[in-house]
Amino acid sequence: MSDTPTVRIDELAAHVEQDVRLQGWLYNIRSSKKLHFMQLRDGTGIVQVVVSKADVGDEIFELVSGMGQESSLRVIGNVKADERAQGGHELLASDVQLIQNTHDYPITPKEHGVAFLLEHRHLWLRSKRQHAVLRIRSQVEQAAHAFFESRGFLRFDAPILTPAECEGSSTLFETDYFDEKAYLTQSGQLYAEAGAQAFGRVYTFGPTFRAEKSKTRRHLMEFWMIEPEAAFFDLDDDIELAEGFICALLARVLETCRPELEVLERDTAALEAVTQPFPRLSYSEALERLRAQNMNIEFGEDFGADEETVLAKEFDRPLVVHRYPASLKPFYMKRDPDDPSVVLNMDVLAPEGYGEIIGGSVREEVLETLDAQIAEKQMDPEPLGWYRDLRRYGSVPHAGFGLGLERTLTWICGLHHLRETIPFPRLMGRLYP
Amino acid sequence: MSDTPTVRIDELAAHVEQDVRLQGWLYNIRSSKKLHFMQLRDGTGIVQVVVSKADVGDEIFELVSGMGQESSLRVIGNVKADERAQGGHELLASDVQLIQNTHDYPITPKEHGVAFLLEHRHLWLRSKRQHAVLRIRSQVEQAAHAFFESRGFLRFDAPILTPAECEGSSTLFETDYFDEKAYLTQSGQLYAEAGAQAFGRVYTFGPTFRAEKSKTRRHLMEFWMIEPEAAFFDLDDDIELAEGFICALLARVLETCRPELEVLERDTAALEAVTQPFPRLSYSEALERLRAQNMNIEFGEDFGADEETVLAKEFDRPLVVHRYPASLKPFYMKRDPDDPSVVLNMDVLAPEGYGEIIGGSVREEVLETLDAQIAEKQMDPEPLGWYRDLRRYGSVPHAGFGLGLERTLTWICGLHHLRETIPFPRLMGRLYP
Repeated sequence: MSDTPTVRIDELAAHVEQDVRLQGWLYNIRSSKKLHFMQLRDGTGIVQVVVSKADVGDEIFELVSGMGQESSLRVIGNVKADERAQGGHELLASDVQLIQNTHDYPITPKEHGVAFLLEHRHLWLRSKRQHAVLRIRSQVEQAAHAFFESRGFLRFDAPILTPAECEGSSTLFETDYFDEKAYLTQSGQLYAEAGAQAFGRVYTFGPTFRAEKSKTRRHLMEFWMIEPEAAFFDLDDDIELAEGFICALLARVLETCRPELEVLERDTAALEAVTQPFPRLSYSEALERLRAQNMNIEFGEDFGADEETVLAKEFDRPLVVHRYPASLKPFYMKRDPDDPSVVLNMDVLAPEGYGEIIGGSVREEVLETLDAQIAEKQMDPEPLGWYRDLRRYGSVPHAGFGLGLERTLTWICGLHHLRETIPFPRLMGRLYP
Repeated sequence: MSDTPTVRIDELAAHVEQDVRLQGWLYNIRSSKKLHFMQLRDGTGIVQVVVSKADVGDEIFELVSGMGQESSLRVIGNVKADERAQGGHELLASDVQLIQNTHDYPITPKEHGVAFLLEHRHLWLRSKRQHAVLRIRSQVEQAAHAFFESRGFLRFDAPILTPAECEGSSTLFETDYFDEKAYLTQSGQLYAEAGAQAFGRVYTFGPTFRAEKSKTRRHLMEFWMIEPEAAFFDLDDDIELAEGFICALLARVLETCRPELEVLERDTAALEAVTQPFPRLSYSEALERLRAQNMNIEFGEDFGADEETVLAKEFDRPLVVHRYPASLKPFYMKRDPDDPSVVLNMDVLAPEGYGEIIGGSVREEVLETLDAQIAEKQMDPEPLGWYRDLRRYGSVPHAGFGLGLERTLTWICGLHHLRETIPFPRLMGRLYP
């Protein structure tokens, strides 16, 4: 049997009626006196392995009887096509080799509390739902690279350790950098702006950090951002790019992750409904809509989760809200020349109450105006010297946005909480494992 | 002229004999009384723009005369195919619009010191050589994703903030995490091992950190690592994967980055010579070779840059050195059953004296043995509880490696120093910009 090819479960279709070796873990098992029905997982899928006492003999049959959930093993068997089977195939075992018998696996098919599951995240990853979410995450990441490459954006890695705060220091993680203070980045945008002037179009893709004392289901301390930045883009270009990006991510997931969406019981019709263009409201128009529903927000107040949900639920696709009050927004955003009380920004709110997944804007490209806005926000211009240089040497109109990967995945997967969309979530009070 | 399409320089081939609008920056200019020859860059390339006084009139001709290096501008003109021209095209201008006239751009064609250039990294990025290096970086990153996707590896993002040191605490960046101590990761490997047991094959791709008080040309404080990890892989599988990976990266660069390699004056023959399989030496065989050259290293001593260079220069492709003394290597590496004084590890040394670019190993999968090795290295097993769980529940043989992105790029680009391979290098004493 040494010539038996070792294959993975997602390759079984090419081996029907052949003998193959599979390697993996026991996900579940049902047994009768003469038959075991093992659910074997190997990371690419789950397949039913039929172990018949008549085929494998008493000794191996007994061995399998004693195997606990998540035991590691190798199986040799013949591949049978079976439409009723999960994945369309099952394996008729001729030999089973135990690698490690696992007893008392902590995560059983019964319900566990969230704290327990998070404490066992290194094992929880093996569960069907977590597996589905993280396969979708991987596909979304690959789709992001493909999308920006197709649009002529160069991947550009922004630094993680930065010398100065960008959006206020109260939520920064700080570290000692050879007797200087360094902060973990909250956004690669400012650096991407330097990249856009060198390469025209760039995007960052990396972890960002926020030391926020908040335990909501929409916050992680460590989360991944994708931030395109393009020279000569205006607000319409920026919105069109965001729409195209979201549609590209959804197209990939719908094309490659149907089984995963099914595991998550995600209503795919809601995802299929998302096409360009997205509806657009100015902040002022959004205010009117909220007031019509007796939510009394004053001009200059930010929208919370409740307001976002009310606004988004009127539409079957993401909603673009643009031109927010300048007072709410950071120093680098460009004012609307037609109404300097607002900025040329846009947020994209996911449908179904999932809230903001993208925030972007045109950036102020005139040095004097930028300096006035830095002063207005009472920021120290000193550490921003290099950023101000970008307005001194070949300044051009430019715009960009940031997409929060985990928030986007929470929506795509239809989850209640952000924490399941990243392999090892970092939450308040949660740094382990 | 409002119907004139706005295009990028790398799209000019599709517009020969047509009028187009280009947007970008003045890279260089030569002038005579009646003609300007502008080198315009837009991030996708550089094109010569011919501005003739007869075509544009006195006023525009004068405007161009006054433009400094890195001025931002728009040009309308007719695309001419010209084999002698850089990129095969030039533009005959009919209109030039200035966006911002730049004076006293700090980085001129003359030579500048490294400290000055690093202080102006946000501008230095625009220079031809830096541009070439970072375009190659982007292509290598895309090729890495494509390679691992084609081999069935799932992208798996390891956390940056971690509760415990993995390879000694003296070189860790530390931060306060809500009154706990957290450290910036030095490697995603331990987490990738949890991923491999869930998904079979995973790879991480992200920043890692080392607070090393060292100013060599091979060290950055913040660098990017790509770390595949695969269940059921042995050392040969691991080496074969590393070989295939390096060859895939080189193939992409040779396919898509010829002009960039030319800018860098890289000897491409040295890159084309790299094919599978790579030569392999055990550590002991390597010792013998070094002794034959009068470099007296005792068994148990590590190789430095000098030894690596001597070993690698005998070969025209990367060299795999395997089975190092266990005393030199971290707790998680599996001992060689045939000789427990060495571990089942491998380093890949780049040719031409560029040193180690990959380090990998089989991981110890038996809990008792792992615990003994943790004790031997005098490490605290407590924060490794979750990692020890991986040996308790469905442990399997597995292996992986880490490739240092910047070291690999230094070799591919033929550079003297690592610092040019990342947009914003973090060096000892260098946190700005």
